[in-house]
Parts: sequence; structure tokens; C-alpha cells
Amino acid sequence: MKACVLYSGGKDSSLMAVILSRLGYDVDLVTVNFGVFDSYIPASMSAKSLNFNHVVFHMDQSILEEAVKIIMNDGFPNNGIKYLHEEVLEAISSKYEIIADGTRRDDRTPKINKDQIKSLEDRHNIQYVNLDSFGYKMINSLVSKLFELSYEKRCLAVSCYYRKAWHSQIVQYEGRRVLSPPASSLNCMHCKMSKTGRCGFSSETTVWRERQTVVLLLKL
Amino acid sequence: MKACVLYSGGKDSSLMAVILSRLGYDVDLVTVNFGVFDSYIPASMSAKSLNFNHVVFHMDQSILEEAVKIIMNDGFPNNGIKYLHEEVLEAISSKYEIIADGTRRDDRTPKINKDQIKSLEDRHNIQYVNLDSFGYKMINSLVSKLFELSYEKRCLAVSCYYRKAWHSQIVQYEGRRVLSPPASSLNCMHCKMSKTGRCGFSSETTVWRERQTVVLLLKL
Repeated sequence: MKACVLYSGGKDSSLMAVILSRLGYDVDLVTVNFGVFDSYIPASMSAKSLNFNHVVFHMDQSILEEAVKIIMNDGFPNNGIKYLHEEVLEAISSKYEIIADGTRRDDRTPKINKDQIKSLEDRHNIQYVNLDSFGYKMINSLVSKLFELSYEKRCLAVSCYYRKAWHSQIVQYEGRRVLSPPASSLNCMHCKMSKTGRCGFSSETTVWRERQTVVLLLKL
Repeated sequence: MKACVLYSGGKDSSLMAVILSRLGYDVDLVTVNFGVFDSYIPASMSAKSLNFNHVVFHMDQSILEEAVKIIMNDGFPNNGIKYLHEEVLEAISSKYEIIADGTRRDDRTPKINKDQIKSLEDRHNIQYVNLDSFGYKMINSLVSKLFELSYEKRCLAVSCYYRKAWHSQIVQYEGRRVLSPPASSLNCMHCKMSKTGRCGFSSETTVWRERQTVVLLLKL
């Protein structure tokens, strides 16, 4: 049976994909794109190296713009990222019967709660799966066990799709390249682990500079 | 790395074991016994047929007695079962670094919440895993995909270890065999699915009569 994993190219969504694959599901790794930034390229590289089918799912830029408005109004990213995540889940639920993402027990944003899961599942007749079974230590242990990192240089900031899309939009909103975003906007709640480098992605938030793309390889 | 799955012999804990095994863990299926009832026998049969190591973990009967007191005082089983589950998790946490059980997103009792998980993990330096990633439909689908049921006759009521232990204690408390427990006590919250037969276990609560033991076999 086909399952979709919303895919950033990071370790959590990669782990989700491996779990479903090992339970016998035919997994599509789906990276959402809003037509602003080619953030799906590093994700597609990881998907390829993990031997999964990779799909770029195009969504309207207006959704991203709305998310950015929420973020700019709030002055912090949580609600905007949450809005984006929920819009993506709603849209992809019409395409697959099993929808998974890499959100885990310790995550706060983006995260849908039990009532939202039930609503999503019932309205679309789908099954939603995430990494709630596991805590961060277990996930780190699983990731070390399952993956190795390969570094490849390219001219693209590598981060989760929320973060990239958001930065890209800030660039558009402010009409200039954001080289030093304000401190309050540095803390992307989706890939917050990246601040310590444990996410596998760069901890820097400056966009458009040359850096290494992290590609995950399956060890076992 | 070694992982313990608290094991009733049912589909949820069996699924938990298969997931960890497919992620590369060396799984012990651990069935708790309070020295009252040989409830570990059907679990050991399923464990064997699934090709897992099975361990019977003996705990003091006083814990079961305390659980029964709570149930009798409350007039319904939730708090007593919750107490039992927490005592089991505390005890087993000194024996393994990874502790898993078959509780899932839709379960209410027994279930430990996020604060309890964090406390358990931090105090014992362990990792706790359950089936919170999955809803009941996904678990049913996975179970159909992974397991087939084999029925074997033996003289033992087959149910989850909470339920068996609880009934057995009621027998002791009341000094007689309970052939028709009051309706309020029929609804075991741990294996509530058994009322519709979907659990794979008998929906009857009369103990000690001959019935079929359900043994799980791995299909894939």
C-alpha cells in the first residue's frame, strides 16, 4: 500500500520513511514547494540516496504568503509554521490514504494534536502517522544506527522547507537579501535542533550562501 | 541493542516488537507475572511463533493486591490498571535501557502521559517507546498485513495480563469462582477491543473454562 511521508530531507522524516518502508508500505517522499525557492533539491538528493521515490508537491504561493503574514504579525514563527503545516496536511490528504510526517513526541511546532488528527483522518478517510512513539534520545539513537551523512557542496541554504520558504518570503517582503535576520526570527521551531548542529543541517540562518548539502545514506 | 516490550501476547504488543525488531533492536518480550495465574503461557506461545525471546518477569503479589483494592474501592478498573501499569514500568526500567509497550494513540488506560514518560526516562536513564505514532485503523491494517492468527485449544482463559490477574484476584477476594461478574466489571479498559472480538481474544469474562488460545504468526 502507498504511503506519503512529508519530506524535508532531514533525519526525522527520513526515519519515518524507513519505518513505514520496513513495515511493508510503498513510500513516496513528498516535498512541498510554493514556487519561491528550490528547496526540494537537497530533499530529492537524500530521497535518492535512501532509495525512495521523491515527489515535489506544488502548492499555491498565497498559502506561504499567508503564513508569512501571520509570522510577521506575531513577531515569532510558531503560528505561521503551524498554519503552513496544517494547510499542507489538508492538501496532501486528498492524494494519499496514508499521510506521515517526521513530527515527534518532543516537538511543539509544527504539530497537530489528537483532535486535529481525528478530524483529518475522518474527513479525508486517511490514516495519519508521525514519530510520537519516540523521544528525541531514541530518535538520535535510531538515526545514528540507520543513517550516515554525506556532505556535498552546492549553492543553496539547506534547511527544512518551512524555514527556507519563510526566509525566502522575508527576502521578498523586505525587498532585500536577509543576511542577518533579527535574533527572534532565528529560532525555527520546526528544525530547532539545527541550532546545535544535531539536525544535520547548518545552524546558520543566512540564506543564499554556498554551503554543504547534507544527504542521508541508509547504513542498514 | 536490547529492547524490552511488555508483552500480553496480543496484537498491539506484538506489533511494537516487530517494529523495534525491524529497526535493528534485539527484542525481549517480557510478560509480567504476579504468581497468581499462569497468564504468561499463551503470551509465550505467541512469542515463540513470532520468533522472539520470551521472558517472564515476576513481581510481588502485593502489587496486584493493591491494584485490586483500588479497583474494588473505585468500582471500575481504570485507576487500578493504571497503577499496575506504572508499577510494572518502574520495575522493568531497572532491567532494560529501552522499554516499550503496545499502548497506542487511541488508548486511555493504561497509558502514561508525556510528563510521566519524561520522568520515567530521566530517572532511570531509559528510553520509552509505545504505539502513539499510530491510530487504531492503521494498527488494524498493519496487524492484518503482518500477522495471522492460529487457534489452539487449552484450559486457560486468554486475555491481557491485567484482566487475567484482576479476575484471578477477584476470585480470591470473593472466595469463589466468578462465573458472572457484574456488568460494570466486564469492561476491561486494556483489552476493551475484545468485547467485539477484534482483539483476537475471547470476549467472555468467565475464567477457567476451556477456550481457544490465540497465537500470532508473522506473515511477512
